Order: sequence, then C-alpha cells, then structure tokens
Amino acid sequence: MMLDEKTLEKLRAKDKRVISKLITKVETDEGEESALLDEIYKRGGNSYRIGITGPPGAGKSTLTNQLTKLLIEQGKTVGIIAVDPTSPFTGGALLGDRVRMTEIGLHPNVYIRSMATRGSLGGLSKKAIDASDVLDAAGYDYIIFETVGVGQSELDIAKTSDTTVVVLVPESGDSIQAMKAGLMEIADFFVVNKSDRPGSDSAVMALKSILQLNRQTNSAWQIEILQTVASQNQGVREVLDEILKHKKYLEETGALEERRVRNNKIRVKNIVENELRIEMWNETREKYLADEAPKVVAREISPFTLAENLIENYKTVGV
Amino acid sequence: MMLDEKTLEKLRAKDKRVISKLITKVETDEGEESALLDEIYKRGGNSYRIGITGPPGAGKSTLTNQLTKLLIEQGKTVGIIAVDPTSPFTGGALLGDRVRMTEIGLHPNVYIRSMATRGSLGGLSKKAIDASDVLDAAGYDYIIFETVGVGQSELDIAKTSDTTVVVLVPESGDSIQAMKAGLMEIADFFVVNKSDRPGSDSAVMALKSILQLNRQTNSAWQIEILQTVASQNQGVREVLDEILKHKKYLEETGALEERRVRNNKIRVKNIVENELRIEMWNETREKYLADEAPKVVAREISPFTLAENLIENYKTVGV
Repeated sequence: MMLDEKTLEKLRAKDKRVISKLITKVETDEGEESALLDEIYKRGGNSYRIGITGPPGAGKSTLTNQLTKLLIEQGKTVGIIAVDPTSPFTGGALLGDRVRMTEIGLHPNVYIRSMATRGSLGGLSKKAIDASDVLDAAGYDYIIFETVGVGQSELDIAKTSDTTVVVLVPESGDSIQAMKAGLMEIADFFVVNKSDRPGSDSAVMALKSILQLNRQTNSAWQIEILQTVASQNQGVREVLDEILKHKKYLEETGALEERRVRNNKIRVKNIVENELRIEMWNETREKYLADEAPKVVAREISPFTLAENLIENYKTVGV
Repeated sequence: MMLDEKTLEKLRAKDKRVISKLITKVETDEGEESALLDEIYKRGGNSYRIGITGPPGAGKSTLTNQLTKLLIEQGKTVGIIAVDPTSPFTGGALLGDRVRMTEIGLHPNVYIRSMATRGSLGGLSKKAIDASDVLDAAGYDYIIFETVGVGQSELDIAKTSDTTVVVLVPESGDSIQAMKAGLMEIADFFVVNKSDRPGSDSAVMALKSILQLNRQTNSAWQIEILQTVASQNQGVREVLDEILKHKKYLEETGALEERRVRNNKIRVKNIVENELRIEMWNETREKYLADEAPKVVAREISPFTLAENLIENYKTVGV
C-alpha cells in the first residue's frame, strides 16, 4: 500500500481506520515498507512527543488518561502509543485497554494504539517509533508514548521523546535508591504518583538527594518532582503545566532542535544496526553458527575465532 | 601480555594477582586482546556457571556469600563476578564489596571481581563473560555471576549460565505480577528471600500461578520456589541443594551440552554484532551521521534513507 491521495486525505482527517491500517502495515514490515515509511516520515514534523515511563503498577495509564482529558478539553488532538513488553505475559494490558477505550478512546480527537510482544524488544521500540510517524503525519498535536520501565526498549523510546516524565510510587523507595542510571538520566521531571500512600514525602526526599548527586551542570533546566494521585485527578494539571513549561524551555533555548537531532541520530543508528543484524544472520550463516557452536563448547574453537569467521563471510559473500 | 608458561602456571595455581591482571587486560580490550582471549578460552571448560539475578535490594549478595561459604566448606573453589550497572550511581556496591571481602574474599579458594559501569550495558556483559573465561582457565569449580535484574545486560549474562536463580522479596508482589517475560524465562528456580517478612507466602502463591500459566511443557525440569532468610542463613543449604539437583539433571539428561551450545550461539552472536557496530561507526560515518541528522529533523531526508546511505558506505568503503 502506497500513499495515494485518497489515503493521505483520510490520514490527515485523522480517520482512525486508515491510521490503524497504516500502523499495522508499518508493524508487519514486509520489505517494500521503507518506501512507505519514507513517504509517511516526510509528511510529519508537527507533533510534540511526550514519553511517560516508570515501573509496572506506577499508574502510568491513569496519568496518561487524565493528561489526555485535559488536552482534549483545550481542543488539542492526542495520539497515544502504549508499549508494554510484559503484557502478553500477565494479560494486564488488555483489561487496561478496555477501560481506557471507554474513557477517552472513543473521543474523535484521541487515537490509542497498544503494542505488546513477547519477541524482540529492539524490534518493539522500532515499531513504536515508526507508528508514531503515522500519527505525526496525521497531524496529532501531541503523541504520548506510555512505556513500562523495565529494559532497554523504553529507554530507546524515551530517547525519541521531546519531554520524558518518569512516574514512580512511594513504595519505589528501594528501587529509587538503586534505580538504574538510565532511567534517571532520561527524566525531564519526576512524578511520585499514589502520593496519598504513606512514604510519599520520604520518596520525594530520597529522589531529591539522588538528583543532587547527579546534577547535570550543563543544563539550565531544573528537574522537579511532582506528587499526584492520578486516580483522583490530583496534581494532574500541574503535570501538564510542567510538560508545557519544559516544551517552552526547549523551544526558547534552541534545545528542542538539539534534542531532536540527538534523538534522530539514535534512531538512525538503531535502524542501521537492526538492518546489519538482519543481513548478517541469513540462513547460511545461522546454519554455520549452529554447526560450529558444539565445537566452541568442546573448546576446539573459541567464540572469538568463530565470530571472526562469520564476519569475514559476511564481508566477502555479503547478504 | 600473552600467556607465557609462568603466567599460566600462576593462573592455574589461582594466584589472585595474576587473575586480576588478566581480567583487567580483558576488560580494557586493546585490539591484540582476542588472541589472548583465544588462549584463555581454550584452557577452560571445567567450571560450572551459576547466575544469581533479581531486583535491587533482594539480597543477592548475601545469598551469594552464604552459598560460597557452603561450597568452600566442601572444599570447592569459587569465582564470583558481581555485575551492577547501577552501582556507580548509588555507590552501594562499594560498601557491599568491603563487607564481602572480609567475609569470604580473603579465603584462598574464593576470588571476587566487581564490575560496574555507567557506560554501555552490552559492553559490560561481554566483559563479564570474558572475565569468567579467566576464572574458568584458572580452574575454579564454580563461577557465580551475581547481577542486578534491571535490563538486557543481566539477561545476557544469565544466558551464559548453566543454572540461573532468580531472587525476589515478598514485597516484589506488584513486580511479580508484571514481571517481564525475560526474567521469568531464564529462571531455573526462584528464591523468595527475606521471607520472614509479611507477604512471603502470598508472593510464593502469586509466583506459582504465573508459573503455571507459563509452564514449558517440553522440559522435565520442575521449577521450584524456595524461601530463604539469607541474612540468617535460613534455607541457604536448600538453595545449594537445588542448584546441585539442577546440575545433576542437566548432566544426566544431556541438557547441559544442549544449553551450553545455545549459550555459546548467543555469545558468538553478541561478539559479532558488537564487532559490526564498532566497524560501522568509525569516525567518518559518525561525522556523516552528525552532519545529516539536522536534515532528518527538517524532514529533508528520512531516517530510513539516511540509514541506507550509511550501510551502503560501510559495504563499499568498509572499515
């Protein structure tokens, strides 16, 4: 399917059926896709991307829903991409999705897409980013990536966002202490949700002291910690205000362009490495690896020599 | 430094200074290394590898220490590689290391190496695995990988282990529900540590029901859930028994060979992909990417076309 005029028109009119079809097309990825992706990419550029990430159970969906309600009240259009690599496992996402659809998903200005897979995480984040291009081409004012903070995947997605919000709960105490550097470094600000629970203030304190240890001195942006009870809509407006404040900061200082250049470098690198991986592991070399691996176990050949042989083959024989 | 006879002799005598030097050499990786790695690799093959992973604060170090004490009581030798990508951030590992060194690290039959870095996680797991080859060549009976379960890194390391133990705490309730599939799939058995705390039994129940949903029908191995209070040495002997039971199971069914072939395939793939990445992103192409990225932001070129140009350049110009 290429982008004929009629499809384009419907896409720009935010026809949800056309959007869904295009995203599915992008997801299934069948070779001729990159021409389609190209077409779609060139028609975007106007959406503002917000990443909302954090541990499972932090209330990211609830917060996303409330933020979306505020945005549509202001006449904005919102596309949501919810990525949960854990969901096929627990089945949690499906239930959440149904609640969400009735709450905001039926509104004409809101499009929601859930993505979940047991398979390769790298692939999942690539698809999510490609899907956001479709929403961008459709002209959504805001694209919200909602991702479960469990691995590399959501870090990759966060790295395509203009503003990244990390959502925690008071009980995250231990995890905050030991929180992986990656999650700390991507946060433009933090939200401690469910802050009507005990320990909220001390979670904020713990977070503050970690932030002070890691202050990025080369930025004028002050990383705040907000407290919310998203399920009761407490503090959600302040979260939106903070997002818009950050947006304004990025736009006024030229940091938005800078960040998008950085994000796109990461994106291109991921596309390249993914492509190299696909080319490298063709059937012949997969078979060669399978045949030789027992010799590695028997210490007849080292993994380094075997790796070298494989690379040599790729370079001389090619795809 | 190549492996001369004297060095080899000292390595086999488990001279800790020589081991440390070799691991450092492997860590710093300066080109001529793969010949050294090759040499080291071919001299190993006798160690049994145990992976101990789980969320921060689950008590993995305490459990590892207690298990090590039991093993040295039985006259075994133990090499420990503790990988914590979060530690440079919190400083936690350093304190833990000091306690550990006085507890077991001074014993002649125990060697401990901590690895932590803010940098690339992929690199970290590669180094950890390479380091384990040094311990294997030195002839340690057991190599324990202790890794914080926060990302791809510890999954990679787990995939080089013969037996993988996933350690949780009763409070992991929410996280158990939403636990990423990866962590569930690598566990040969589970330990719920700190099980004198409330909620331990219900954590076990929750885990059991998840396990039932995900039963791997093609394996005769029954995944157990053990409860421990490692700090009081409760249940630790049972953990060791379970490890040895799993080892015996793997050896008797031929599954050990099978698992090691699989693990080595993954290892070789990682080496190949790492090498391709290094070759791909030479100075020229990094610069080209940096120059072109603003055009991607301006939608003059798509990330897909730019990626294609870069791959084309790699293939025609090479390194």
